[in-house]
Amino acid sequence: MNEFELITRLIPSLPTNASVVAGAGDDCAILDVGIPDRWLLFKTDAVVEGIHFKREVDPEKIGHKALARCLSDIAAMGGTPTHALVTLGLPKPFDLGFVEALYRGLNRLAVRYQVAVVGGETTLNPERIFISVSVLGTVPKAKGILRSGATAGDAIFVTGKLGGSLAGRHLDFEPRLVEARWLVEHFSIHAMIDISDGLAGDLGHLLKASQVGAELLASAIPISQSARLLAKSESPKKPPLLAALTDGEDFELLFTVSSRDAVALLDSWKNRFPELPLSCIGKIIPGSGVFIKDKQGMRPLTAHGYIHFA
Amino acid sequence: MNEFELITRLIPSLPTNASVVAGAGDDCAILDVGIPDRWLLFKTDAVVEGIHFKREVDPEKIGHKALARCLSDIAAMGGTPTHALVTLGLPKPFDLGFVEALYRGLNRLAVRYQVAVVGGETTLNPERIFISVSVLGTVPKAKGILRSGATAGDAIFVTGKLGGSLAGRHLDFEPRLVEARWLVEHFSIHAMIDISDGLAGDLGHLLKASQVGAELLASAIPISQSARLLAKSESPKKPPLLAALTDGEDFELLFTVSSRDAVALLDSWKNRFPELPLSCIGKIIPGSGVFIKDKQGMRPLTAHGYIHFA
Repeated sequence: MNEFELITRLIPSLPTNASVVAGAGDDCAILDVGIPDRWLLFKTDAVVEGIHFKREVDPEKIGHKALARCLSDIAAMGGTPTHALVTLGLPKPFDLGFVEALYRGLNRLAVRYQVAVVGGETTLNPERIFISVSVLGTVPKAKGILRSGATAGDAIFVTGKLGGSLAGRHLDFEPRLVEARWLVEHFSIHAMIDISDGLAGDLGHLLKASQVGAELLASAIPISQSARLLAKSESPKKPPLLAALTDGEDFELLFTVSSRDAVALLDSWKNRFPELPLSCIGKIIPGSGVFIKDKQGMRPLTAHGYIHFA
Repeated sequence: MNEFELITRLIPSLPTNASVVAGAGDDCAILDVGIPDRWLLFKTDAVVEGIHFKREVDPEKIGHKALARCLSDIAAMGGTPTHALVTLGLPKPFDLGFVEALYRGLNRLAVRYQVAVVGGETTLNPERIFISVSVLGTVPKAKGILRSGATAGDAIFVTGKLGGSLAGRHLDFEPRLVEARWLVEHFSIHAMIDISDGLAGDLGHLLKASQVGAELLASAIPISQSARLLAKSESPKKPPLLAALTDGEDFELLFTVSSRDAVALLDSWKNRFPELPLSCIGKIIPGSGVFIKDKQGMRPLTAHGYIHFA
C-alpha cells in the first residue's frame, strides 16, 4: 500500500464540520471560517533529510524548499498565503548555524510574499532532520480553484519546463503564486494542481477528481534543459520526454480552461510573463485515463505515470 | 543551547505582517484574518516515538495525545478548536493497522470537540514514527487570553492535580477546553497557559511574559495520586511535591485572576465542575522569580523548575 492508497483509505473516516468547503484530497483544505467573501486555505507539508534533501545541501535552500512546497499548494488554489508555522525535528546536539541558515532561507521566501512566520516548535528526531511546515492563505470565494472542475473539451496548460528537477531546481524553485493569482483574476480556470509527483501523476489526480480523461500531444510537452542533460549523463538513460512526464518536484502549475479561452490566454500570458513559458499540452476528453499522441500514434500512460514505450 | 534558548534566538528575525496579533511565544499564534469579532488561533505540535511515546503503546492513545496536546494550547487561549491537519512520518513498511488505530484515537477526540480533520500528509521517517499536528481555532476578540496579562496581587490557580503524568495520564488526558471557555466567559482571566513543561517551568513562562514574579504556598499545590505512588516506587525517590512542581505533561490550566474574584471563582467552579479540583496555589508579586513557602520558610524555585531542598 502506497501513500495515495493509505490516504484514500483514511479519508472517509475523517471528522468534518459545517465550515469545511473542501477537506482532504485537494492541494489545500478550503474552510469557511466567517471571513466575508473569502475562504481560508490550510495546508501542511514535510521534508525529511535523506528523502527530500541531503544533509550536505545548503541549509538556506532546505528552508526555502520546506516553505516553497506549501506556497506552491496555495498557488494551486489561486490563493494568497498569509501565515506559516514551522516544526523542526532535530538530531542532538543540533547545529545552531544550520538551523539559523535554514530559517534565513525560509524567512527570505516568506518576506517576499508577506507571509508571517508565527511560531512552531522544535523537537528531537535523533536520526535525521524533519521539517514540517503549515501554512494559511485566503482566496476570494468565487475564485478558489479545485482539482475537480475540468470538463471534456477543456484545453490543458502547464507553466515552465518539466523534468530533471532533482538536478537542482527542487531546492530553489519559485512557487507560482503571482502567476496563479493572475490566472484566476483574468480567466475562468476550471481546475488546477501543482506538479509535485510528476506531470502524469498529478494530471491523473486532477482527472480523477474531475472524472474525465485527457489526450496529450507528446511534441507539446515542455522539456527542461536538465531533463535533456540528464538523459545524456544518466545510466540507465531516461528519455527526456519520460523525465518531463514522470519526474517529480517540478512545482509548476497544471490547469485547464475552456478551449474558447485558450488562444486569448496564451496571448495575454506572453505579455504578462514573457520569461516563463506556458504550454498547451492537450485536451480533456470524456471517460478516464491519459493518452499521449506522437508520430507512432496514441498510447496510454499508466496510472503511476510511466509510459510504455513501444 | 536548549529548545527555549533556540526559539528565543530565532523569534526576532521571523517575518510578520499586519494581521498578526500575537506571533511566536504564546500557546498559539493569534491572527486577525478578517473574521468579524473573532481572532483565529493557529498552533502546531509534534510527538515523536521514543521521546513522547513508546512504540508499544496503544496507537489509539498516541493519536489521542498528538491532537490533545494542540487542543490544550487552544484551551490555554480560551479558544474553540475548529480544524486540524495531520502529518505522519512513518518507517517503511508501515503497519496499516497501527495507522488506522492512531487515526481512530485522534478522530474520536476530534469528533468530541467538533474539530474537522481536513487533511495532512504522510512521508517516510525511516527510524521512528513522527506525528505533527496543526490546529486552527477561534476566540472572541475581547476574550483571547495571553500569557502576558498577569499583574501583581493576582491569585494564581491551577486545575486538576499535578505530577506523575508519565505513569499514564499523558496518553489519555482530556484537554481543558470546556473549562477554559467557561472561565473566559464568566471571569476576567488575566493570563493563562497550559502546563506541558511542568508547573514551575510554565509558571516561569507566564511570569516572564507578564514581567512579574510569584509566591506559591507548598501546601496548596495539588499533588496527583500518581506522583505519590511513584514517590514510593521510584529509585531514586522523587518527593511528590517536587514531582507536582516539575513533572511535565500535566496539560492542566494555570491562570491568574484579580484576588477580588478568587473566592467567587472557587465557588462557581465547584458548582460547575464538581469533579475537577481547582486550587489557588499562590499570588503574583512585583519583580521576578518564583518563591515557595512551606514550614521552613520561603525558598526560591530555579528557572528550570527544580527546587533546592534544604
